[in-house]
Amino acid sequence: MPVPDALRQRLAEVADLAHAAAVLEWDQETYMPPGGAEARGRQIATLRRFAHERFVDERVGEWIEGAEGEGDLDRALLRVTARDWRRATLLPGRLVAEKAEASARAKGAWKAAREADRFDLFAPHLEQILSLAREEADLVRPLVAGERGSAYAPSDADARYDALLDAYEPGASAAGVAAVFGELREGLVPLVAAVAEAEPPDDAFLRRPFDADAQWAFGLDIAQALGYSLDHGRQDRSAHPFTTAFGVTDVRITTRVDPDFFPTAFFSTVHEAGHGIYEQGFAPELAGTPLADGASLGVHESQSRLYENLVARSAPFWKWAYPMLQARFPHLGDVPRKAFVRAVNKVEPSLIRVEADELTYHLHVLLRFELERALLAGDLAVDDLPAAWNERMAEYLGVVPPSDADGCLQDIHWSLGAVGYFPTYTLGTLMSAQLWTAADDDLDGLDAQLEAGAFEPLLGWLRDKVHRWGRAKTAGQILRDATGQDLEAGPWLAYARGKVERLYGVTA
Amino acid sequence: MPVPDALRQRLAEVADLAHAAAVLEWDQETYMPPGGAEARGRQIATLRRFAHERFVDERVGEWIEGAEGEGDLDRALLRVTARDWRRATLLPGRLVAEKAEASARAKGAWKAAREADRFDLFAPHLEQILSLAREEADLVRPLVAGERGSAYAPSDADARYDALLDAYEPGASAAGVAAVFGELREGLVPLVAAVAEAEPPDDAFLRRPFDADAQWAFGLDIAQALGYSLDHGRQDRSAHPFTTAFGVTDVRITTRVDPDFFPTAFFSTVHEAGHGIYEQGFAPELAGTPLADGASLGVHESQSRLYENLVARSAPFWKWAYPMLQARFPHLGDVPRKAFVRAVNKVEPSLIRVEADELTYHLHVLLRFELERALLAGDLAVDDLPAAWNERMAEYLGVVPPSDADGCLQDIHWSLGAVGYFPTYTLGTLMSAQLWTAADDDLDGLDAQLEAGAFEPLLGWLRDKVHRWGRAKTAGQILRDATGQDLEAGPWLAYARGKVERLYGVTA
Repeated sequence: MPVPDALRQRLAEVADLAHAAAVLEWDQETYMPPGGAEARGRQIATLRRFAHERFVDERVGEWIEGAEGEGDLDRALLRVTARDWRRATLLPGRLVAEKAEASARAKGAWKAAREADRFDLFAPHLEQILSLAREEADLVRPLVAGERGSAYAPSDADARYDALLDAYEPGASAAGVAAVFGELREGLVPLVAAVAEAEPPDDAFLRRPFDADAQWAFGLDIAQALGYSLDHGRQDRSAHPFTTAFGVTDVRITTRVDPDFFPTAFFSTVHEAGHGIYEQGFAPELAGTPLADGASLGVHESQSRLYENLVARSAPFWKWAYPMLQARFPHLGDVPRKAFVRAVNKVEPSLIRVEADELTYHLHVLLRFELERALLAGDLAVDDLPAAWNERMAEYLGVVPPSDADGCLQDIHWSLGAVGYFPTYTLGTLMSAQLWTAADDDLDGLDAQLEAGAFEPLLGWLRDKVHRWGRAKTAGQILRDATGQDLEAGPWLAYARGKVERLYGVTA
Repeated sequence: MPVPDALRQRLAEVADLAHAAAVLEWDQETYMPPGGAEARGRQIATLRRFAHERFVDERVGEWIEGAEGEGDLDRALLRVTARDWRRATLLPGRLVAEKAEASARAKGAWKAAREADRFDLFAPHLEQILSLAREEADLVRPLVAGERGSAYAPSDADARYDALLDAYEPGASAAGVAAVFGELREGLVPLVAAVAEAEPPDDAFLRRPFDADAQWAFGLDIAQALGYSLDHGRQDRSAHPFTTAFGVTDVRITTRVDPDFFPTAFFSTVHEAGHGIYEQGFAPELAGTPLADGASLGVHESQSRLYENLVARSAPFWKWAYPMLQARFPHLGDVPRKAFVRAVNKVEPSLIRVEADELTYHLHVLLRFELERALLAGDLAVDDLPAAWNERMAEYLGVVPPSDADGCLQDIHWSLGAVGYFPTYTLGTLMSAQLWTAADDDLDGLDAQLEAGAFEPLLGWLRDKVHRWGRAKTAGQILRDATGQDLEAGPWLAYARGKVERLYGVTA
């Protein structure tokens, strides 16, 4: 039996509803007048509810059940759709509603707690979020375990974490992440400590007035040079940068501009352009199906970080781009290129994840992974979180938050119910270095291409190995087919060590 | 039986879907990248289909049937909802689909015909549009006739026209429109002829470079002064100006700017702001119901034209506004205010409706009404349309189109299937003068208020008499309650004569 047309139509309809909701969310963050917020919340909820109801319909299950699929693409479609459908139907409406309510309350409490620097105001909400996460995990566990086969026998607590992590990074496990992250920690903590001892680069010239329109134009020029298409995308301003897709042919990015600090808009533009390039690169035949999405959040992040860091923070890239930047901002005329490259690669342990540099960022993530894994398992009591947080900050980064507001209350994610989400930032970064290494091999050296502003070979390689597949390959398959390896920390650590040695003259 | 909650919820859901579609359409006209068009068309169609399906559901009919409503608002809700539901359920899906297909083909053919100036390419499509319009009219006629009672006995052809007109202007009839339009024509044709003989005002100073950003800012300042709220609205650029609402709390307008001709952006901004002020003024308790919409297209147009013409083309208004305009555009420094007012009120017979001035505009509408009424009735053959068009142009305006492209092929409306739509432009204009006259009485003279830039009394009066009711009163009720009169051409003709006499020194 081929994939029935009724199934295809239903999936296209669900995609239309989800994309419509995404348009409304995009508008909410970019152009919506303040008074429109309440009605907008209801409109989005209505669209999301319709999309959900049309998808969890019993008939969808029957259509999947009855089909086998002809060709790889249809088989992938059935595999991914069946998985999404089973996961969606495992959660009772009651739990989904409870989660939404708990998270709405927790979000408000988190904001108040952070403002007042009072963790005790947030603690009971985090407790409830964790309790609902355990409930969800227990419902989803059989599905995840069933797929992984008899060799999969994690501890009870890790089976729960796996079930949650799987929603963001299908196929990943707490134990696997912990092993890779352990290797990363071993290498990264001493590296960061060594950098902290070294003379920091001067970046005062980045903290000058940079004309906002010129920043905008420069970022967008670079994004397009890298491969982001304005025929199928656009860039707008928002308080928090993001990428969103209304289909393969309309993938938008947002950024914010700091008129007195160059890196904010530029690296965020390139980061989001990386996400956007990925989604613009899905094969057209995936459109309107669940395959037209990132293989995992990690793979998604691998593309944004690859463009942001491995391309746009590299010395070869600036050899090409720096004269253009100087032409736009004449006050950089007396800043040597090497000083500029050092400045945009400044490494400095700090308190806030979202402001962290390329290297120390991952110690923030490691800490969150370890703590949420322990919280979920019950090995760490919610009340003990602030102390555990500060202890690890001291151990990994050598800095201790002066307040919980700058410590364990800094991120919104847990209040939203996102447990098992943080690791994907670092998983993606590790992948980005693995992919880079393989591309560098396959394309006979990327540095010379970056120096020449020739980004097409890299784009072509990524299109072929990563983008076009969407979810038709799993993250693991993509990585293995592109690099011949599973997830590893080594390539990224080698990259990080090389950069530190070149820029700081220190080794660790 | 009060209005059941299930009905209210269903109506709110339908409103959410319709508003979501409107957001997607707004984005399509303002920000969407070119490559996104195809997917967007499908997304909008999916949302519209859902909204339709959820509304024509049998249960909606049962809920309406079983309810009586407590209080005026609920009774109005049931009346309007029942009417929409009956009209929507009278049309079989087959006819709706045929109309959509015919109109898609006709739109393409119309574009090609206009470009090639070949009416024969469009004629068969217009024939089919008319045939489907007759079919629709015959299905809807019993509903319209049933509501109007036994005294209603139009000719067969007019009963069809009434059924179509009723979708845009509920309660209006071809005979009624013809009577009022006849009176209008009697007065307007000689008035326009007299103006055509007079010395035209010099408007060369309007055709200079006007900084686009300054035009934008000035228009938006005035729109806000008149009552348009940016807390619940915003203005964006689009090729064709329009107003759209995503609920009572988010009503947006668009405009386009001609950097070398001042009136384009300004009067279009005030026009759309008039539409926007109306929709922002619906009573909050109408939100999420079919009552939160214009009472008719005519009433909607009465608000846009009132602000565009009776306010923003008036001498008292510019007494207040002209110093601000001169401050923004110093090159107007040597243009006396009276010359400026004359220039923005220039009356000149011309070929194209959308470029016509405030007075001659209505002769374009009269001609369309008369011709589409005759076409629908079969009294005018499609092939004879170009000749009939040109004949009437000569008679009413004293100009003859050199081509059908500038004649009967100039408007897109018929190709979209909109038959019975054109009269609403003029009906609204007549209402605007009636409302103005009543407001002027009630508020003891509006001129002094305009001169002082005091727009709140007028806004308050319109809020009270027109805006807040939405569809809770019919157009006829609104007019009668506000002015004590039914629709009349007299007040607008008196206004037009007064203006011509003041500006041109001629009478007719």
